[in-house]
Amino acid sequence: MATDINSIHTPAFVVNEAVALQNIAAFQAHCDQVGLALRPHIKTHKSVHFAKAQLAAGANGITCQKISEAEAMAVDGIDDILITYNILGDAKLRRLRALSERLTALAVVADNMVVINGLSRTFSGASEPLKVLVECDTGAGRCGVQSPEAAVALAEKIAVLPGLQFGGLMTYPAVGGAKNAAEFLRETKKLLDECGLACPVISSGGSPDMWSATTDGIISEYRIGTYIYNDRSLVRAGACTWDECAGHVVATVVSTPTPERAIIDAGSKVLTSDLLGFTDHGHVVGHPEIRVVGLSEEHGTLSVDPQNPLAIGQRIRIVPNHVCVVSNMFDEIWIEGSDGNLAQLSIDARGRVI
Amino acid sequence: MATDINSIHTPAFVVNEAVALQNIAAFQAHCDQVGLALRPHIKTHKSVHFAKAQLAAGANGITCQKISEAEAMAVDGIDDILITYNILGDAKLRRLRALSERLTALAVVADNMVVINGLSRTFSGASEPLKVLVECDTGAGRCGVQSPEAAVALAEKIAVLPGLQFGGLMTYPAVGGAKNAAEFLRETKKLLDECGLACPVISSGGSPDMWSATTDGIISEYRIGTYIYNDRSLVRAGACTWDECAGHVVATVVSTPTPERAIIDAGSKVLTSDLLGFTDHGHVVGHPEIRVVGLSEEHGTLSVDPQNPLAIGQRIRIVPNHVCVVSNMFDEIWIEGSDGNLAQLSIDARGRVI
Repeated sequence: MATDINSIHTPAFVVNEAVALQNIAAFQAHCDQVGLALRPHIKTHKSVHFAKAQLAAGANGITCQKISEAEAMAVDGIDDILITYNILGDAKLRRLRALSERLTALAVVADNMVVINGLSRTFSGASEPLKVLVECDTGAGRCGVQSPEAAVALAEKIAVLPGLQFGGLMTYPAVGGAKNAAEFLRETKKLLDECGLACPVISSGGSPDMWSATTDGIISEYRIGTYIYNDRSLVRAGACTWDECAGHVVATVVSTPTPERAIIDAGSKVLTSDLLGFTDHGHVVGHPEIRVVGLSEEHGTLSVDPQNPLAIGQRIRIVPNHVCVVSNMFDEIWIEGSDGNLAQLSIDARGRVI
Repeated sequence: MATDINSIHTPAFVVNEAVALQNIAAFQAHCDQVGLALRPHIKTHKSVHFAKAQLAAGANGITCQKISEAEAMAVDGIDDILITYNILGDAKLRRLRALSERLTALAVVADNMVVINGLSRTFSGASEPLKVLVECDTGAGRCGVQSPEAAVALAEKIAVLPGLQFGGLMTYPAVGGAKNAAEFLRETKKLLDECGLACPVISSGGSPDMWSATTDGIISEYRIGTYIYNDRSLVRAGACTWDECAGHVVATVVSTPTPERAIIDAGSKVLTSDLLGFTDHGHVVGHPEIRVVGLSEEHGTLSVDPQNPLAIGQRIRIVPNHVCVVSNMFDEIWIEGSDGNLAQLSIDARGRVI
């Protein structure tokens, strides 16, 4: 018997594979055209299956955010990982050293000397030095050194400390902040050149500005996660169309208490409460008149047009506001083929927050 | 070597067992005093260990929200479960029938005839009829029939359909809406009496109003989840103190990019984006001056007082805004004993949204 979206248990997360592969191919083509290496971030799919699809399409490696994500990705065929995170503490550093022995290429980032000293202690005596990129805060206000001078100071430390190799510069720019980021990185590169420090990689990233991403005469690598599935926030940003949204939450209408209200079996434990600037909780495919006005843990409350009601038992598809946190709620998702048939996929790195 | 909060990997969810057990005991004592049966909702802890602790303290059964949660809880020693959800669809109904054979007592709720007819088809011919409570919308605006008359109409159907037994009334009242709920339920009970329909259970619930919960001359059972761990929203509601918050997220400071900013390794994939009316993302224990001003997926951004800075590598404890969604992010949590030692606990029903 065929498995389709009417026969699976809901709530479910369903990925249209053709759309996902097309999203991968389209952005790879963009990067190839503008001369950017592409290093996709697996935080969105957390799946070996899709990481391999990204590499097969031409990606030069993958990005992970946490050591435990990288451990889940380090399988045959995935051997080049950048962890864009300050890793510290003896237990995690031991895991990082062990991970390095399973990969051809491993790099991390750092923005402070506590982290750099820990990395050096851990990799001192290793057969290969660990590549460490300096994270730069170019306006996003999260991690990162605050000035080109501070970046160079850390790069010089990395270059001389045992067990380490200066791997380049990394930033996660503010949305709309690519120009500022390029200026910060260009100035840093100039100072590095003056010190005679080679800078093999200059890595930037971010989905909302993906299609305007260029080398800017300075950037060599782009990191991006959401583009594989896309979501409501990226439609709003103009980065994709609804048809390019590969990841849908499928939910069932379980109650229609009033003509204006329908309740679905997907709540905040599936759709999450990420708003990303919206005031409601997703886009109901084919029903622009419906709003997901409220979520409790296992219920979603929809405002519906009484002239165009939903029926109890009916299934709907929702494009979430922010797909990266939604796909992480499921141990297994469904891959939808072009014939509408579904196959289950385990999510290798779900919940890997360590 | 002792395992304490400085030796575990972060981010982590840590439950102080003595505090949790005291929370269980205190609300059980309240219910005993006012004459309410207590049926704790396991959505908050999703753990057989803590469900058994609630039963041992005197609870008359447990509440689950989804069939898959109930399946995870149906072990030796847990044999009375109410699923407060409209269950529909052949596949889920088959699972419900199978579950009923593993329990002494199983009940569900319904607010419409599609659900009731499905339940009847499924339990027709079963050795025991399925208890079905009618869910009433007494002001919360989620599921539930809209009037006492509608409740009675469904109760009459349940009473005559094969495989089913009318189990009573259930509501999840609006916060502050206990009085309205009691009026709705009293009126419904009066109409049921006039029809000669016995109403064995009248079940209400909710955490913010927990300490004012009484029978109101009508309610027989109270359902409550959050009270076992408590959280920031319940401190604000006056339902508990900070010392009664048993569940903490433990995070590590990974970066201090500026004197006013610290970054921790817990983001929205741990703390979730649930605001519950707050404008920031949790209460940092012992640091009322710190605000968790931003979350990305794996980073939390803290505004700190430069005169009282956090150090890179330092661990902090956070009371989340809404603990029920946070504990659900972890496959394993840590139970903290009175000596500070930690022991790992697998979360049996984590992610059980089906």
